[in-house]
Amino acid sequence: MDGNTDLMAHAPPAEFESATPARRRDSERTRQAIMTAALKEFSQLGYAGARIERIAKSAKCNIRMLYHYFGAKSGLYVAVLEDAYRDIRQKEATLKIDVEQPLEGLLELMRFTYAYFQNNPLFEGLLRAENMMQGKFVSRSRPVAEAAFSLKKTIGELIASGQAKGIFRPDLDPVQVYVTITALSRFHLANAYSMSAVLETDLRDKEWRKLRLQHALDLLEAYLVSGAGKAPP
Amino acid sequence: MDGNTDLMAHAPPAEFESATPARRRDSERTRQAIMTAALKEFSQLGYAGARIERIAKSAKCNIRMLYHYFGAKSGLYVAVLEDAYRDIRQKEATLKIDVEQPLEGLLELMRFTYAYFQNNPLFEGLLRAENMMQGKFVSRSRPVAEAAFSLKKTIGELIASGQAKGIFRPDLDPVQVYVTITALSRFHLANAYSMSAVLETDLRDKEWRKLRLQHALDLLEAYLVSGAGKAPP
Repeated sequence: MDGNTDLMAHAPPAEFESATPARRRDSERTRQAIMTAALKEFSQLGYAGARIERIAKSAKCNIRMLYHYFGAKSGLYVAVLEDAYRDIRQKEATLKIDVEQPLEGLLELMRFTYAYFQNNPLFEGLLRAENMMQGKFVSRSRPVAEAAFSLKKTIGELIASGQAKGIFRPDLDPVQVYVTITALSRFHLANAYSMSAVLETDLRDKEWRKLRLQHALDLLEAYLVSGAGKAPP
Repeated sequence: MDGNTDLMAHAPPAEFESATPARRRDSERTRQAIMTAALKEFSQLGYAGARIERIAKSAKCNIRMLYHYFGAKSGLYVAVLEDAYRDIRQKEATLKIDVEQPLEGLLELMRFTYAYFQNNPLFEGLLRAENMMQGKFVSRSRPVAEAAFSLKKTIGELIASGQAKGIFRPDLDPVQVYVTITALSRFHLANAYSMSAVLETDLRDKEWRKLRLQHALDLLEAYLVSGAGKAPP
């Protein structure tokens, strides 16, 4: 399978350029309906379990049309995956983060990430499917890595600012901090059923999830400020 | 499907009692070979994707024998799942934890949990499969919940001890603390491929994983001791 073909399959077909505005709108609407149906199918059944026929039926379009837009199952899957990452990165970019308020900035990123995954459970399912396939598609996607540049830059700037102000510990690593923010946002969702059974506590309960966010914020804050002002190790 | 039948399917067949020692040994060896093959199959392909024929072939036993021991696919799956939980709980119980050293006790539990999941990647796959099925089997398993009683008790005692000594913050919840220990142990394994792609950092690298454990220990310690000695909220 040719990686480039897959990644390019997301682009609109060539005749799109010359279509009338009304036809373009229809075409865009159909593409969106297919993407929505595909996100649900891939998220719940995984890549191997997903059926193109079911996606086309659910999107009320015919299969020929679907293949016309996305080329192949893999093209559709990559389009859905990249679109999901694009959405979180775009919403992240609208956060009002002030590099002069580094603690508040990282806590705001924690709140956003926590809420985003709670409100987008299909994204979690998609990531589960992708990791089950050992990152077959995500590891070849330039858009996914490129979209995260500015997130990583922001986290790095917030850390540097907090350290310069003497309010953050000296040994912070932006990657570790972001993995932790994401772990505290997603682990209890991905493992809600098994952890609820083991701990005999309903991790899907609304109240519990509110307390979980507070715990995550307390944890992150305590860590960032502990040992502040000390010399780097 | 009858839940009780599934859960009981793990017990050896009735004629086991009257068998000669040599036949019992053979029988136990066959059961173990089936369980080992089944753990791998369920972990990598999920419940729906797993094939009994492949498990029997890989365990070098015939299918009739497999059904004789485990009753059905669901019986085999439950046996594998409960066995995996039994193993982690048994090893946890051998940790030398001193309730008079509460900080060290919780850090030791963090180290153990981190290492256990790193060394048992098939367990992570099994939990992924189980949560993908919305906890269909784990939520009905009494052994899984019961095996965790003593873990929860130990965490509660360590927290109470640390608070009585004035070295832990007053608002600690044993369930939140354990979900965090597990999240910091498992999230980077379950999401190694997607997170590596997003962050352009190899989360599967041995050195990175050592740094990850140190980060997890620092995070947990900073949280537990922050605000120590203050009155409860």
